[in-house]
Amino acid sequence: MIGHPFYAVEPWSLRETEIDLDVLGQSESVFALGNGHIGWRGNLDEGEPHGLPGAYLNGVYESRPLPYAEAGYGDPEAGQTVINVTNGKVIRLLVDDAPFDLRYGRVLDHERVLDFRTGLLERRVTWESPMGKRVKVHSSRLVSLVQRSVAAICYEVEAVDTELWVVLQSELVANEALPDGAADPRVAAVLKAPLVPEENSSRTAGGLLVHRTAVSGLRIAAAMDHHIQAPPSLNETVESFEDLARYTVTAVLKPGERLRLIKYVTYGWSQVRSEPAVRAQVEGALAGAVRTGWEGLVDQQRTYLDDFWARADVEVEGDAEIQQAVRFALFHVLQAGARAEHRAIPAKGLTGTGYDGHAFWDTETFVLPMLTYIVPQAAGDALRWRYDTLPLAKERARQLGLKGAAFPWRTITGAECSGYWPAGTAAFHIDADIAAAAVRYVGATGDTDFEKTIGLELLIQTARLWRSLGHHDGQGRFRIDGVTGPDEYSAIADNNVYTNLMAQHNLVSAATVAERYSDRALESGVDAEEVASWRDAAAAMYIPYDDVLGVHPQAEGFTSHEMWDFAGTPPEKYPLLLHFPYFDLYRKQVVKQADLVLAMALRGEAFTDEQKSRNFAYYEALTVRDSSLSACTQAVMAAEVGHLQLAGDYLAEAALMDLDDLQHNTRDGLHVASLAGTWVALVAGLAGMREHEGTLSFKPRLPSGITRLAVNLSLHASRLRVEITANTVTYQLQDGSSLRILHHDEPIDVTADTPITRPIARIPPAPPLHQPPGRAPLRRDAPQ
Amino acid sequence: MIGHPFYAVEPWSLRETEIDLDVLGQSESVFALGNGHIGWRGNLDEGEPHGLPGAYLNGVYESRPLPYAEAGYGDPEAGQTVINVTNGKVIRLLVDDAPFDLRYGRVLDHERVLDFRTGLLERRVTWESPMGKRVKVHSSRLVSLVQRSVAAICYEVEAVDTELWVVLQSELVANEALPDGAADPRVAAVLKAPLVPEENSSRTAGGLLVHRTAVSGLRIAAAMDHHIQAPPSLNETVESFEDLARYTVTAVLKPGERLRLIKYVTYGWSQVRSEPAVRAQVEGALAGAVRTGWEGLVDQQRTYLDDFWARADVEVEGDAEIQQAVRFALFHVLQAGARAEHRAIPAKGLTGTGYDGHAFWDTETFVLPMLTYIVPQAAGDALRWRYDTLPLAKERARQLGLKGAAFPWRTITGAECSGYWPAGTAAFHIDADIAAAAVRYVGATGDTDFEKTIGLELLIQTARLWRSLGHHDGQGRFRIDGVTGPDEYSAIADNNVYTNLMAQHNLVSAATVAERYSDRALESGVDAEEVASWRDAAAAMYIPYDDVLGVHPQAEGFTSHEMWDFAGTPPEKYPLLLHFPYFDLYRKQVVKQADLVLAMALRGEAFTDEQKSRNFAYYEALTVRDSSLSACTQAVMAAEVGHLQLAGDYLAEAALMDLDDLQHNTRDGLHVASLAGTWVALVAGLAGMREHEGTLSFKPRLPSGITRLAVNLSLHASRLRVEITANTVTYQLQDGSSLRILHHDEPIDVTADTPITRPIARIPPAPPLHQPPGRAPLRRDAPQ
Repeated sequence: MIGHPFYAVEPWSLRETEIDLDVLGQSESVFALGNGHIGWRGNLDEGEPHGLPGAYLNGVYESRPLPYAEAGYGDPEAGQTVINVTNGKVIRLLVDDAPFDLRYGRVLDHERVLDFRTGLLERRVTWESPMGKRVKVHSSRLVSLVQRSVAAICYEVEAVDTELWVVLQSELVANEALPDGAADPRVAAVLKAPLVPEENSSRTAGGLLVHRTAVSGLRIAAAMDHHIQAPPSLNETVESFEDLARYTVTAVLKPGERLRLIKYVTYGWSQVRSEPAVRAQVEGALAGAVRTGWEGLVDQQRTYLDDFWARADVEVEGDAEIQQAVRFALFHVLQAGARAEHRAIPAKGLTGTGYDGHAFWDTETFVLPMLTYIVPQAAGDALRWRYDTLPLAKERARQLGLKGAAFPWRTITGAECSGYWPAGTAAFHIDADIAAAAVRYVGATGDTDFEKTIGLELLIQTARLWRSLGHHDGQGRFRIDGVTGPDEYSAIADNNVYTNLMAQHNLVSAATVAERYSDRALESGVDAEEVASWRDAAAAMYIPYDDVLGVHPQAEGFTSHEMWDFAGTPPEKYPLLLHFPYFDLYRKQVVKQADLVLAMALRGEAFTDEQKSRNFAYYEALTVRDSSLSACTQAVMAAEVGHLQLAGDYLAEAALMDLDDLQHNTRDGLHVASLAGTWVALVAGLAGMREHEGTLSFKPRLPSGITRLAVNLSLHASRLRVEITANTVTYQLQDGSSLRILHHDEPIDVTADTPITRPIARIPPAPPLHQPPGRAPLRRDAPQ
Repeated sequence: MIGHPFYAVEPWSLRETEIDLDVLGQSESVFALGNGHIGWRGNLDEGEPHGLPGAYLNGVYESRPLPYAEAGYGDPEAGQTVINVTNGKVIRLLVDDAPFDLRYGRVLDHERVLDFRTGLLERRVTWESPMGKRVKVHSSRLVSLVQRSVAAICYEVEAVDTELWVVLQSELVANEALPDGAADPRVAAVLKAPLVPEENSSRTAGGLLVHRTAVSGLRIAAAMDHHIQAPPSLNETVESFEDLARYTVTAVLKPGERLRLIKYVTYGWSQVRSEPAVRAQVEGALAGAVRTGWEGLVDQQRTYLDDFWARADVEVEGDAEIQQAVRFALFHVLQAGARAEHRAIPAKGLTGTGYDGHAFWDTETFVLPMLTYIVPQAAGDALRWRYDTLPLAKERARQLGLKGAAFPWRTITGAECSGYWPAGTAAFHIDADIAAAAVRYVGATGDTDFEKTIGLELLIQTARLWRSLGHHDGQGRFRIDGVTGPDEYSAIADNNVYTNLMAQHNLVSAATVAERYSDRALESGVDAEEVASWRDAAAAMYIPYDDVLGVHPQAEGFTSHEMWDFAGTPPEKYPLLLHFPYFDLYRKQVVKQADLVLAMALRGEAFTDEQKSRNFAYYEALTVRDSSLSACTQAVMAAEVGHLQLAGDYLAEAALMDLDDLQHNTRDGLHVASLAGTWVALVAGLAGMREHEGTLSFKPRLPSGITRLAVNLSLHASRLRVEITANTVTYQLQDGSSLRILHHDEPIDVTADTPITRPIARIPPAPPLHQPPGRAPLRRDAPQ
């Protein structure tokens, strides 16, 4: 790829050795730090140049009206957009009288390293000012995974060859000017100056800003403190204004002499707490951070991550790029979800403003399958967030004339923010995706406290939605008409197979859990009749099938539609949604992202092997992957039906989505679901892992480019390590006593500390497939 | 109905004898005057109080951005909204020092009469000022059907019982303040102060204003002149400002003495002509109007209308309300279309701002079937307007990836202005509706000059659209997927029967006419291969049928959808679109307006009698008539399948739509298509008229409430009079030599001046039908 930064291929870090100011935005996303509560884009310490300045707090948004040329009943009136909160990253440097700014002078050397084991973003740069004065800057930055409200920076500036007068201005900046938004509808609407000042103050080496969002009425506080090590010629001042708090330190540095500044920043926000309360909250957190100190924060971060990697690492041998990419993915998904704690995990995490900062089905369908097996507490918290939003989802269902809960297609708070209902509200599968994630979480953790409270209620309310959304037709089939499945190049279709199969699973799971906790279910008004009506609907669920072609139509009638003119669609016309009207896409056979194929991945038991092969081949030829949510699923099914090389190709596409900026929009934030999809492609794809009624099964097989794959999975009290080579697989239990799994359908009881090794049968070569012209994934013939 | 003005039932006029200021808006619509070029709402002479002030010029609009919460490729960016142009109606009156204003003082008597034969709106009022001074005002107003740019008012004020000082201020007013728009999305967006002043001037007894619209850049001029007859104590002044020109006359009136003012107003507008040119245009027209004089204008109007009624009158005996309503309808449809001359006939005519002043398929499907047989020149002109917009429609087709022309769902200039594509752009049937109107026009007029130019090109471009929109499936059927039919409670469905049948007719007609004028067709690139491909697609057109239920689904799959919960829908939840989301409406069996039933009315030969009866009964139970475009079509098919009483009920609903304000929005303008539908319900319904390949057929039968129905139809050089009683029908040719028609399928050659009378066979009573609960039409048991 041209036009993206070059990163060195290293197993445990992401290293940039040159800086290209034209593609700064992408580097800010991949070098973003966060903990699920705070997100800091990888902006340069001095604030500019930047692609997009960004500091985010999970749940902090501004409301904006959603306009309609022709409004309809039930169209959401208010949207929600993530906003850039007070920027605590800024440390400006004056070298003699020249501002340190990479757009002027000369960069003599540059390096930024994101270390997945330390969790630090380090930067080293040697710069010559326009007047020929040279400085070295070394900064380290962290957003603490242990202290949720805390971020910190260690900043050092050194005079290289002449004595220098340096001034550091360390700031909190609110309402930063943002670059203008692009015309691409996927890019978030940019809101200007959303923060209304409430309070500002400064004290020795520190400062504080409190603001409130104008419409959504959220109170946001940021505080900072500093610790300085410097030559004696020191001079310190503090000052504060409505949108600026500043700590200024001045020093004269002899050649080789360094000024070292530690900056502690804390954040807090609340919808209900008073200004003094929120202020006290950030000042309290600040006291804790200062007490811990920089080295202490660094140590805590390392300890947290050591534990994480011990539980979660994925080892890939034979393809160093994939090895790096999967650790990059694990690290960033951890950052997105680790400390979200009853808040959403947005599609971009807290790394950018793409998709307005909204959370979608991405979380439950792509991110939680990974978090459930490596950071189960974070998966549980994400579902607790959905649970907390049930009142809004019930109200939305009521507005739509439905029972139960209608979860939003896109949201920050839980309120529906989709302004185009055919590809928003109509995508009711989000309900089943949430239900499936809850069932999966309970299956993996055995968390019965969760199951009988959060899980039960989520299942009841989603089952009620399906029961009221579908109906029995004259032939007794349970139909779900007029909804939109995962593929966004179709909409408002009858009996989408993915939706119907997921709804079936939802209804059966709800019935099972409601019967398991019948007393509690009765408290929610669920009696035996209602449970029976769920089982009945599930049993009668209509799954259309095209007997002539011998494939499942994605939805009823799909296979009768005209084929998209793939041959007549040149490469520059992708993504299609930016060059063709929805009307044209919806009525033809063209698939944006895995839909029927995702149904086969998640509800595999509903298809025969023969159907899987035929369906996969049919949809391969139609799927253009204009969504980043497609490649990982295609990797999973390619592996299952025996296209191992293709599975590897799709794995690489998912893995390199952001590192290679494959969708050309990483500048707006990372594709968190595709990052998680890297793990899914390896674990559900190459290791062939499936979960069915709480039991894990594996059908591992590696493509030729990968010689060894080892994954670690948390299961109940156990940790299962699965290590795969070309010819064998070894299952090993690291905690816990015993676990029954399936290896290529053979039951195996894995016991602690007794690795079990099994051979892997060769798979016969599958018949060749084709993708739409120009849309085949890059062949991964020569991995590095 | 409560809350609408009461009108006396009279055969040739609409008379209001009380004024209710709360429902002034409706009266302004029904008393509107126009000629297709100028439209003046029936505002009170003194300007206020008003429901909505309104002066419109056909084609004059302002552009406005169409906002989208989530925009898609091909969404129109600019909307068009009809604007209130310079108001030339205003004549303010000062009685001593009290302004004549019905909100103050006392109205002692009031009458307004719209006379369908004179074309005058007359008003008589006696008013007592708050100071107890009484005046009589008598005004007459016309918008000339003969002099297209001219309107005029004769205004008289008389002192009743004391000597009075009166001041008349006759004005041109631009950028009038308008009432705030309602939340109902069907109400037009109201634009404030859209006119930018360019020129104003005054001269003896006259004045002129020239403005330009800010964004659309249209230049609009209005001029006025006056002629006064008064006592000698006269004092006249003129003045002009940017948005106001005023002629003021002062007089002292003794009891019984009258001041009489004639006001001439002319309008002109242009997108390209210079300010001096447009100014000269209105001043020239003004000179002509003054030369003609008030009495001359009145005489011209009467002569024009005498001719119109001789050709177009419909006589209804036995139901005086229907008699009045059909003449009201004929008069207003004439006003909407008479002098439109290469401009659109909007859904509201020029009577209000409803639907933004846009034209829809209403014109071709409801209005032109009437105009074609009574004012064929106006029907031809409406189609010439479509022809003139072909460049825009071709460009739209190209943008949508289609061939030929994609006519806009809603527009003023011909550019698509629909901001919700599922119920806009996807309603491609507009193309076939236009084609059918062109074929009908040629069949009725024999206008071969039109056929080989306008008609041929319209047919070619619409046929090309269908050929590129549909495709042959694996079974060789020609399918049209993902489009929206007439029923707006369904959208984006496959193989809508109405659409497919109308497209079939379009393709066959295009092939026939292209073969008839093959040299000219070749100039448009149409060769024998292309014509063959049209015939082939038409022959293979897929018309879905539900074998189990024995009915046609409105679109593929429709009859498998869940039934709307009609029993659970209380009356206050209608119209459904204001109380339920589209997602819910689209996926269930509920019909806003005749769709499959319209297909049976317009393509009757494609259905057996048995199918018609079964289909009609099936859709009667689903159709809620939330659209004013439904009742007339249901009247037509009710009559055909033998439900004569029901046909009469639907006829009355169509006929009284505006007079009884049945949709509660007549204030926004008249329902021109429903007015035309009154004629359609009588002629295609009760007289059973159909046109097939140029031949008219009749199957007349009257419901019990109507004892005689006589209609007059223009056909080629002939005029056919059809007079129906309970037991007989008489066909009479009034010009021309001979005409072959079908009477209950029996061919009859009607010759000039030899009436032919035939008996009407009794029809066996049809099995009872039912409509959704609460949605049956009012029974017309006791007509007046």
